[in-house]
Amino acid sequence: MISNELKTLIQLLSKLPGLGPRSGKRIALHLLQNRETTLSTLTASLQDVSIKVKECPVCGNLDSQDPCALCQNPQRDTSILCIVESVADLWALERTSSYKGHYHVLGGVLSALDGVGPEDLRISSLFHRCRTGTIQEIILALNATVEGQTTNHYLTERLKELGIPHISSLARGVPVGGELDYLDEGTLSTALLSRRRV
Amino acid sequence: MISNELKTLIQLLSKLPGLGPRSGKRIALHLLQNRETTLSTLTASLQDVSIKVKECPVCGNLDSQDPCALCQNPQRDTSILCIVESVADLWALERTSSYKGHYHVLGGVLSALDGVGPEDLRISSLFHRCRTGTIQEIILALNATVEGQTTNHYLTERLKELGIPHISSLARGVPVGGELDYLDEGTLSTALLSRRRV
Repeated sequence: MISNELKTLIQLLSKLPGLGPRSGKRIALHLLQNRETTLSTLTASLQDVSIKVKECPVCGNLDSQDPCALCQNPQRDTSILCIVESVADLWALERTSSYKGHYHVLGGVLSALDGVGPEDLRISSLFHRCRTGTIQEIILALNATVEGQTTNHYLTERLKELGIPHISSLARGVPVGGELDYLDEGTLSTALLSRRRV
Repeated sequence: MISNELKTLIQLLSKLPGLGPRSGKRIALHLLQNRETTLSTLTASLQDVSIKVKECPVCGNLDSQDPCALCQNPQRDTSILCIVESVADLWALERTSSYKGHYHVLGGVLSALDGVGPEDLRISSLFHRCRTGTIQEIILALNATVEGQTTNHYLTERLKELGIPHISSLARGVPVGGELDYLDEGTLSTALLSRRRV
């Protein structure tokens, strides 16, 4: 009873992250019931983004400028490079306003299970940036997952070989506002091991 | 640090029902990371739906045919009309496969609070359909909300004036699989009042 065009739209919406068949239907109906305010503006915005927003060839960030606004910003410190898994992680770090260096987006993490090797990630361009000699410090800001840690280890070894003076990774420990009773054992034992003298 | 085009897309996505700023960002990134498979197909599908899918002038259903497939179907009983609030409700009833009559989508319910009067709904076309004389039975399948019940009452009075022989509304009671302990008092007392002899 649902026309094919609408079925296709619902299927496509249902496959977006966080959505399912029910929310897909709900959004499709909402779009059709608000054609001018929502359906046409969303379509135009998708086309606009598709044409204008590209991956920065230097760092892998998404932007309408080439290279991206972060890479072009003269106020940012070119001697520090922060390596992140995805653009979402870059945005998360930018929200803190506590980092003023440059970024490098890997576009994923090494994963033997999913068949992701170094050649599938933005790793050769990372090494190329490191060889220019301007980078004095690298911060590995990968997710605290098994794959993230494997990638961390792999990159640390290679970056040492390239002669980067300072390589660090994000601190592990009790999150701000975290209650010990609700923390997992792994986080708590890491926090104990990495305890800081006060 | 996020480009304007991308910001606009995230804002539009965030305003869709069930989504927020976080899921909006997640979906925008997902679309950009899967340009061919997702971004372009979704844009094409939205355009396709926007052009082809229209409101049926007879019943208010959404379809690419005019009148819609349900109205055109010769196998459906033209003497019964089921009145629903939205296309989503029509789909819900169609999923049951237990109704073989025609539909009439109101496009909302009467609401003094939101300033929705009879002229804002598809009510005059409903009365027009009733005046043709083919309709023998009307089933009011509106939501069991206060506004739904107000609309129910209003429509019942008017439809009686128009001389429709049978007017009914959906049964209220314990839902299938429902446990009494978890039901609200309203449902339970309605189920008591409308008890059926076995």
